[in-house]
Amino acid sequence: MAVEIDRGVFRTENSPMIESFAAIAGEKEGKGPLGKCFDRIIEDSHFGKDTWEKAESRFQLEAVSLAVNKAKLVKEDIDAVFSGDLINQCIGSAYGLRELDIPFLGLYGACSTMAEGLLLAAVLIDSKAVNRAAAVTSSHFSTAERQFRFPLSYGGQRTPTSQWTCTASGAAIIARESGDIEIVGGCIGKIADMGISDINNMGSAMAPAAAETIRRYLNATDTKPEDYDYIVTGDLGIVGSDLLVEFLLKQGIDISGQHRDCGKMIFDPEKQDTHCGGSGCGCSSSVMCGYFLPQMANGQAKNILFAATGALMSPMSLQQGETIPAIAHLVHLRKE
Amino acid sequence: MAVEIDRGVFRTENSPMIESFAAIAGEKEGKGPLGKCFDRIIEDSHFGKDTWEKAESRFQLEAVSLAVNKAKLVKEDIDAVFSGDLINQCIGSAYGLRELDIPFLGLYGACSTMAEGLLLAAVLIDSKAVNRAAAVTSSHFSTAERQFRFPLSYGGQRTPTSQWTCTASGAAIIARESGDIEIVGGCIGKIADMGISDINNMGSAMAPAAAETIRRYLNATDTKPEDYDYIVTGDLGIVGSDLLVEFLLKQGIDISGQHRDCGKMIFDPEKQDTHCGGSGCGCSSSVMCGYFLPQMANGQAKNILFAATGALMSPMSLQQGETIPAIAHLVHLRKE
Repeated sequence: MAVEIDRGVFRTENSPMIESFAAIAGEKEGKGPLGKCFDRIIEDSHFGKDTWEKAESRFQLEAVSLAVNKAKLVKEDIDAVFSGDLINQCIGSAYGLRELDIPFLGLYGACSTMAEGLLLAAVLIDSKAVNRAAAVTSSHFSTAERQFRFPLSYGGQRTPTSQWTCTASGAAIIARESGDIEIVGGCIGKIADMGISDINNMGSAMAPAAAETIRRYLNATDTKPEDYDYIVTGDLGIVGSDLLVEFLLKQGIDISGQHRDCGKMIFDPEKQDTHCGGSGCGCSSSVMCGYFLPQMANGQAKNILFAATGALMSPMSLQQGETIPAIAHLVHLRKE
Repeated sequence: MAVEIDRGVFRTENSPMIESFAAIAGEKEGKGPLGKCFDRIIEDSHFGKDTWEKAESRFQLEAVSLAVNKAKLVKEDIDAVFSGDLINQCIGSAYGLRELDIPFLGLYGACSTMAEGLLLAAVLIDSKAVNRAAAVTSSHFSTAERQFRFPLSYGGQRTPTSQWTCTASGAAIIARESGDIEIVGGCIGKIADMGISDINNMGSAMAPAAAETIRRYLNATDTKPEDYDYIVTGDLGIVGSDLLVEFLLKQGIDISGQHRDCGKMIFDPEKQDTHCGGSGCGCSSSVMCGYFLPQMANGQAKNILFAATGALMSPMSLQQGETIPAIAHLVHLRKE
């Protein structure tokens, strides 16, 4: 049984735990500062398939399969999988996980999807509706670039505030009282829209959503940034991260010491020409599963807030003159 | 606390109940056999907006708002809303519900989304992670047609097995021990892909998923079709419905007496030139909220299985030679 402690904010009571995790990344991510953290680096952007979309599907399949293997489980042990991605109709997820025969719950939270999946998996495990669940997301530079921006062969110039969609996937297995990283609570995000319409400045569009979610969770739990080892956001990038810290500071909350952003960490902006950093559903999921969860597993970090952010626009909504709505879901991870 | 009774199949224990519901439909749906069931008929396909996508967003906003009003609640009483639609990046949902300031959980289950939303809302309510939630979905003939098939002005010829995407939205409010229609259990669907690749024959692609989910729930709960007033599917249409009944009959399960399909019911195929029937996320949600839930509320039906089906392909996946994966999620509704 969970306990709602504020609107959309809850703590768990039956110890949903992260039992296993895996992260797979592409060649460019493998050459970045976190390259050694990932379980596998896939040099071939097609991953042996004939299209990038099929490659992205394979990233998800391999990430889930690896997380299952690392826990010495078989796929039949997983009662439900939460999954989502950025491709139209989330085909990265549906085709990727089709062959697993695991009850499947499709999500669309853009780049917030990993946090949304962990949050929902935690509640389903906590409630005993299912015994063991998985959460997985993916992104692929080439599927995202041609869908959201330009055909790759066009060679479009990138603006200074743009981010680089990561080719990566991260997967986690969540079970009751099994493992030692507990999901002790969560905060369901609200849609925030500050009127930004520049698709090359997603960090700025998403920062207000992250600020609202983090502030709501801290207030509801009566905790301070210093109570956490890290407050991790998904892919705000360099510009969005600065804005987040600034927004919260204006509300009297200083997260500058604890804040880390997966999008800022995954690439070296100087050497890798990635401008404001990484982005995509696979950015936060692979950095969480490749960098932060291993730190928790080996005791280097004991208390983490993970607030992945998503931008909920589409190319068509922007063409129709709309601004960019954003959201951030949060899970609170603790190791005793 | 819920109880998992088979893989992905659970029953609830803390009485998540449907407290309120509302259905809004377009002009063509209003002229169909169920026209009198909907709370509102919107004659203007643009619903006062300048694009069809914005109109679809407004359908969702109005449906949720109406369901909230009918329960004499205000939007601040809703702790979480589950929402999804068919438009790329689910913009019908994100832009539609943006102004509500309700914690938002985006789903992508194609036309199965209403069942997925009810299922997840039921678990979150049952677990006490939230106190009151909403589930809503929408579809719009014109947003779907131009995205999945042809530009409307092209005037493409429709095949005999094609279905007509409904312009409609249905919303339900779920709360604990409030109302008299209880969500007593659910079944999370698995992805089924029988190798069908004809986008104009979605009913056939989805029927195996519906059969698997319904069979799994009946087996896990040790119940028979005769135990239910209705076994409702979402939008299998005429061809898909026949296939579903046939598939289950081969497995010794005869649902012919109880089966109803929202897609078959919403239009008159002879008079309305809709070929195999209605489809779209808004089809099953509006028929559930406009026809079946009112029947339960007034005591005409006491025990219903609602298994909405979704086809998880995209135009791009079909262009890349893929077949159509499908899914069906189920919720079991009971009135004491």
